[in-house]
Amino acid sequence: MDLKPNDFILDSRLAADCFILGKLDLSVLLLMNNQLVPWFILVPQTDRKEICELNQNQQTALLKEINIISNFVKSEYPQVSKLNVAAIGNMVSQMHIHIVGRNPADYCWPNVVWGNQQKEAYHESEVAVITQKIRGIIA
Amino acid sequence: MDLKPNDFILDSRLAADCFILGKLDLSVLLLMNNQLVPWFILVPQTDRKEICELNQNQQTALLKEINIISNFVKSEYPQVSKLNVAAIGNMVSQMHIHIVGRNPADYCWPNVVWGNQQKEAYHESEVAVITQKIRGIIA
Repeated sequence: MDLKPNDFILDSRLAADCFILGKLDLSVLLLMNNQLVPWFILVPQTDRKEICELNQNQQTALLKEINIISNFVKSEYPQVSKLNVAAIGNMVSQMHIHIVGRNPADYCWPNVVWGNQQKEAYHESEVAVITQKIRGIIA
Repeated sequence: MDLKPNDFILDSRLAADCFILGKLDLSVLLLMNNQLVPWFILVPQTDRKEICELNQNQQTALLKEINIISNFVKSEYPQVSKLNVAAIGNMVSQMHIHIVGRNPADYCWPNVVWGNQQKEAYHESEVAVITQKIRGIIA
């Protein structure tokens, strides 16, 4: 079933672990509260669990939003040499797509970030800067 | 730069770890040699490293191929309750997209498969069966 906009409720674990940066056409955009890497999460406003269960318009919208955030990470974080883009959902079943900027000097390269417990919370002022930058491209 | 079809060379590590099942319009389809989970890999025939660097036609083709393989895993492996779809590439830079069928009884649930060394090779006859089934949908 597709959700009406007002029926969307962000999963409580995502809400606890992340900052809400804004909304795109399909997805809510989150920032994982871990400044060790630039780590964004798109949460499509749907109750489908898998990308292949989205209709074609939703898939097209999601791809566009992945492109927007991918290009944002590449341009704003010059140290990033590889993007990790992933829909996993083994722990949080609400569909969400990770977009993580990685580089060989980061805290868990070449391993994946998922499952690694190391983190460093953002300062409030840093989140404000990222929010301002991202709102310039998703407005 | 985009590759001419004959210029595509599969990365040696992917070639060593996987069976080649066939070709779709954009991608070569691989089967990870680990029967602990159904684990397919799409390798777009390009030398771009990131999905966001593909042109729109390539992105559309890739999304279609992800849908085909996702639906194949859902229909052929009824135990699968979650798909993990991911473009990582920290170890193998050639663009490749993992499509892994997961379930709460599998060998590393709820952790991700990447970084886990446990594996169980396929028998030749099992690969032949999977190849035959998949060729029916990608032909």
